[in-house]
Amino acid sequence: MERIKGNCKVYIVGAGPGNPGLLTLAARDAIAQADVIIYDYLLPETLLSYARPKCVKIKHTPGSTSAERLEAFKRVVSESCKDGAVIVRLHNGDPFIFGMGNEEVAYLDKEGVPYEVIPGITSATGVPSYVGLPLTSRGISSSVVIVNGHPISPDEINWKALVEIRGTLVFLMGIGTAGLISKSLIEAGADPEAPCCAISRGTLEGQKVLLTKLGDLEEAIKREGIRPPGVIVIGRVVETLSGRG
Amino acid sequence: MERIKGNCKVYIVGAGPGNPGLLTLAARDAIAQADVIIYDYLLPETLLSYARPKCVKIKHTPGSTSAERLEAFKRVVSESCKDGAVIVRLHNGDPFIFGMGNEEVAYLDKEGVPYEVIPGITSATGVPSYVGLPLTSRGISSSVVIVNGHPISPDEINWKALVEIRGTLVFLMGIGTAGLISKSLIEAGADPEAPCCAISRGTLEGQKVLLTKLGDLEEAIKREGIRPPGVIVIGRVVETLSGRG
Repeated sequence: MERIKGNCKVYIVGAGPGNPGLLTLAARDAIAQADVIIYDYLLPETLLSYARPKCVKIKHTPGSTSAERLEAFKRVVSESCKDGAVIVRLHNGDPFIFGMGNEEVAYLDKEGVPYEVIPGITSATGVPSYVGLPLTSRGISSSVVIVNGHPISPDEINWKALVEIRGTLVFLMGIGTAGLISKSLIEAGADPEAPCCAISRGTLEGQKVLLTKLGDLEEAIKREGIRPPGVIVIGRVVETLSGRG
Repeated sequence: MERIKGNCKVYIVGAGPGNPGLLTLAARDAIAQADVIIYDYLLPETLLSYARPKCVKIKHTPGSTSAERLEAFKRVVSESCKDGAVIVRLHNGDPFIFGMGNEEVAYLDKEGVPYEVIPGITSATGVPSYVGLPLTSRGISSSVVIVNGHPISPDEINWKALVEIRGTLVFLMGIGTAGLISKSLIEAGADPEAPCCAISRGTLEGQKVLLTKLGDLEEAIKREGIRPPGVIVIGRVVETLSGRG
């Protein structure tokens, strides 16, 4: 394979959970310098307002597979890479938590393209934090497990270990698979009364916060019209939020 | 107890892992408005450069206990709370991940003081991401467990569950307890050859990255002079970083 010609620079950037105030200073500066931005389709377009008028903005196709998105990234980099060009790959959350940032970086390494990673606030921590929901609490929970809720392969997850860790569980992209998540956890020994919080459109306009218990999670999500994208938090820390209500 | 008089506003703010570029726009704005800032002692003072000249900056005492820091926070709020005053509590990382933000918020709720939470990048995700170390990777790891390494109560941690989850483990503040962490994990069935990465002063000048294996973790940390504060990542994702070297 021929190496990419030119001497561009790629920024692999986390945009955070979506609220424009939760963009980092470094992410804003990268956006402001960009000649080309390739971004996730769920990303609020207001985050692109720092880009120069001439910047080319390319949105990933909704519903595209991981492999298709990686191919699109490679194509954009190889086509846009010319001397001094700045390419920004803008991820929801953090690029390296369920973000494919590592596959993009592996490609850039192979091609010898200079790059820099700018971490972002992952929705797994930023969305609960924004609504005042602690993920750890002295005497209540001293660990947090972040699990990918979609695509979910229930056989690949050790549900028993998830339960026995006795910490806080956070499922990203788990609104659509909430029924499977709660069923699997309860079968593995979790208390159906365990407090749960589901947050949709976290940090954005139209944010919804649902407080329920594990056994009712799927039904409550349907009843309250909680839609993806969302974050689910399960564990005793949720009591601190309900107590505050 | 008498309620706090006055009508101030408190911002509970995450400053991120320390690199000034990883401050969020909202955190910078809160700092710029503050009349009083109370901040963690490990926080780089450069992050305070956005404050007004008249802003009073109060640093937590190094080595103070959680209870002492909470008391100091309450004292600052009750003494500084006057009409229109802006008080910023600036945390390392995110306020709600081993940050006591929840205890501060509980106090503000009780006192009826208006507040807002501004999430930050937790070092648990931001420090590995900054060095290009993914915490998840398709086919390699689809979960991340974040554990507090100090203070550590080995009996409170279910080490077996941590091992059996077969995901990525991240220990915050675990440099000083690395020997205990690796011993406990190996006794619980972890592979002594499991790849590990220890990062000290992550995202800051003088950052050090150590690649080793679980069985050698404590010795390698001593040999390479890795000092707290630091983040330890254990799991197969670390291979992607060593492969890149």
